Amino acid sequence: MAEVSELAGIVGEAHLLTGDDIGDDYTHDEALTATPQRPLAVVRPASTADVAAILAWATAHAVPVTARGSGTGLSGACIPRADGILVSFERMADILELDTDNHVAVVQPGVTLHQLDEATAAVGLVYPVFPGESSASLGGNVATNAGGMRAVRYGVTRHQVLGLTAVLATGEVLRTGGKFVKATSGYDLTQLIIGSEGTLALATEATLRLHPRLTHGATILVPFPTLEGVAAAVPRIVGSGLMPTILEYIDFITMSAITSAAGLELGVPEDVKAGALAYLVVVLENRSDDRVEEDTAELAELVTALGALDVYVLPPGAGAALIEAREKANGADDIIDLVVPRAAIPQYLSEVQAIAGASGSLVVGCGHAGDGNVHLSVFQPDAAVRSDVVGRVLSAGVALGGAVSGEHGIGTEKKKYLAAIEDPAKLDLMRRIKTAFDPAGVLNPGAIFD
Amino acid sequence: MAEVSELAGIVGEAHLLTGDDIGDDYTHDEALTATPQRPLAVVRPASTADVAAILAWATAHAVPVTARGSGTGLSGACIPRADGILVSFERMADILELDTDNHVAVVQPGVTLHQLDEATAAVGLVYPVFPGESSASLGGNVATNAGGMRAVRYGVTRHQVLGLTAVLATGEVLRTGGKFVKATSGYDLTQLIIGSEGTLALATEATLRLHPRLTHGATILVPFPTLEGVAAAVPRIVGSGLMPTILEYIDFITMSAITSAAGLELGVPEDVKAGALAYLVVVLENRSDDRVEEDTAELAELVTALGALDVYVLPPGAGAALIEAREKANGADDIIDLVVPRAAIPQYLSEVQAIAGASGSLVVGCGHAGDGNVHLSVFQPDAAVRSDVVGRVLSAGVALGGAVSGEHGIGTEKKKYLAAIEDPAKLDLMRRIKTAFDPAGVLNPGAIFD
Repeated sequence: MAEVSELAGIVGEAHLLTGDDIGDDYTHDEALTATPQRPLAVVRPASTADVAAILAWATAHAVPVTARGSGTGLSGACIPRADGILVSFERMADILELDTDNHVAVVQPGVTLHQLDEATAAVGLVYPVFPGESSASLGGNVATNAGGMRAVRYGVTRHQVLGLTAVLATGEVLRTGGKFVKATSGYDLTQLIIGSEGTLALATEATLRLHPRLTHGATILVPFPTLEGVAAAVPRIVGSGLMPTILEYIDFITMSAITSAAGLELGVPEDVKAGALAYLVVVLENRSDDRVEEDTAELAELVTALGALDVYVLPPGAGAALIEAREKANGADDIIDLVVPRAAIPQYLSEVQAIAGASGSLVVGCGHAGDGNVHLSVFQPDAAVRSDVVGRVLSAGVALGGAVSGEHGIGTEKKKYLAAIEDPAKLDLMRRIKTAFDPAGVLNPGAIFD
Repeated sequence: MAEVSELAGIVGEAHLLTGDDIGDDYTHDEALTATPQRPLAVVRPASTADVAAILAWATAHAVPVTARGSGTGLSGACIPRADGILVSFERMADILELDTDNHVAVVQPGVTLHQLDEATAAVGLVYPVFPGESSASLGGNVATNAGGMRAVRYGVTRHQVLGLTAVLATGEVLRTGGKFVKATSGYDLTQLIIGSEGTLALATEATLRLHPRLTHGATILVPFPTLEGVAAAVPRIVGSGLMPTILEYIDFITMSAITSAAGLELGVPEDVKAGALAYLVVVLENRSDDRVEEDTAELAELVTALGALDVYVLPPGAGAALIEAREKANGADDIIDLVVPRAAIPQYLSEVQAIAGASGSLVVGCGHAGDGNVHLSVFQPDAAVRSDVVGRVLSAGVALGGAVSGEHGIGTEKKKYLAAIEDPAKLDLMRRIKTAFDPAGVLNPGAIFD
């Protein structure tokens, strides 16, 4: 039996926590359904070399390792195991480089989105992934391939990470990619590690692509009489070349919940509200106020022709507040973030309502209409019934050409559904890839698949 | 010993070529240094099921398999082996779907870029990867992660492929990804297969992202007195938010060669030519002629402030001809398409000139300045000297944080350099991944690594 006390030789006594010194925060993430778990120890490395030594020790002693950034994940992927250690990146939280010639930032995994946003704003650049929780860490974002509302314009984490320093379970340190947007020089290990939820390697540095920060924008709210109307408008808006930064749909129940919870008054008259079953929220950004105004006028003309009930340009404060409120949790029993081809959203949601209704559950939502990522809140207190409903709702989406998770990941909380829905040949291949990286199976065992 | 004649049972006698029926085209690609090779047989499948049966046969009999699209590759990755078979995708050349709601095309591997461009133009969309050879196939583009001049705005093949139907060496058929831009549902097999040069799986269908086709644009030629001036201008242009579709540099030797070879008169006066050591070629596109004009004026102001000698808006014909001529081969003995961080281009090219000069070689070039992809033509008839020069030129780029190939791939022709330069731990990991996909090692053995 390995003695975790040996790890003090790597990180020092002060950064090895055991027993009651392990605070509750380390035992959970923000998944609604997961059970908190206390690990054998929490280890706080200060460097890539520390991480390499920790992982070599773990492989030598066959001790499971779970990595943790800010703990804001929604699928249980950073919840430690009782027989394992938790590697917490809170001491590796520096922006190592902000390179304004190559438009990249090099960050440690504990850097938060908020921290990076402040630093990039100062030089007129932006890291464009906004998954809705600015305390989230970049390490966690890389592990889950975090997305968010701006994916319709900029893509997700996968599209911004140009390179990694990654530590294998054996302690070998790899450098992948670099300060360039493309290469064909062997297999793309960067892309393979992104979204692997800590099961293949631990990223200790990430080279991130930055973009020019657009400082002129408008938030536009468009009520539609039907969800089909919203769905039909989406390809037309994207196809127009207006390049919305955000293109969200919100159903009327969710809109009513978030506006009342946030005390938001958006200026939509009662008679319009009464006829609106779904809303589009569009953020347009451009290089000058003139262009934003022109684009807004063009959008208004387009959606009006497509059956919108009206068009409201929200005051800056209200627009930001709506976007923020849209991101908040809502007291549901479980959440789903399935992705489907965006044109399939109306059919999918009507199937979801049938499934929900048959089980006496309430399933409501909103989502990234531009990229087909549907966020559903499931209200069903009975765990067995809920599990069945969630399984059916996910299966229905996959049957329409979708995938189980658009951005939250599988973790421990969605893996039973993935196991039931996904092609076993693909899961077997993933297991063989896992073994190629981590022969002893110590990296986050039990996440994604068993 | 397996009898290749058995393959007629899968594709029919007419689509199994052996002996003298194998035309010379099947024996090579467009790599300058590779030796043509005749395979045991050429097999022309008509379907995913055909490909699955062929690969199952190959694995059962341990016969190497090389895939071929249009044969326009530049690294030897589709040159067959004498003891293997060549799978040619010429019969799988249909655009299976053009989905204007989800903005995707589903294509077979033999579809050419030209064919896809015509089809997408008809619906106001564009597949934005233009690697410079429109007869190239999408299957080949996926295998090499093809890039090209528009990568600065749109990214490369990797950023456009949303999903694949891929056949493993065992004959298992996998479907990865889908009609959506993001998912976190296990490892990203789509991204892993892209750029793997036929060594992991054969793609038989690809789901491609389409974009709105911008129909208003201008080509702008900007001479600079030094290459450093060009390099300093690039981050300022990208940072301006003007979003150039193309941002190329051309050195004065290459500019002179391509304009005289193509008989192009660009209207640059002799005195300006005499002082210009490097040129930027910028293509701006937008949604209206007014915006293109505004953007062009802003670009002109910006580059003038940054030391440009002058600014020429090329007539549409000349602009297109320059872009096309820039893509042509040029009688060199070898070509290099290394990528470096874009800000390192001047330092890199000065190191390249030192290496070239010391060996009595001529190395000239141009490149995708926006993304650091440097295309060099190496003139050195002695193979041993040339190999040494190419090795040094590549090592110098990697030492600056670059990668051996930006878009041509490694194939058979650059693998000795990759083996010498790349971290052995990474190559070992890639070999283990290869084994996870292809335990018998039949898929394009000898490409990327031995």
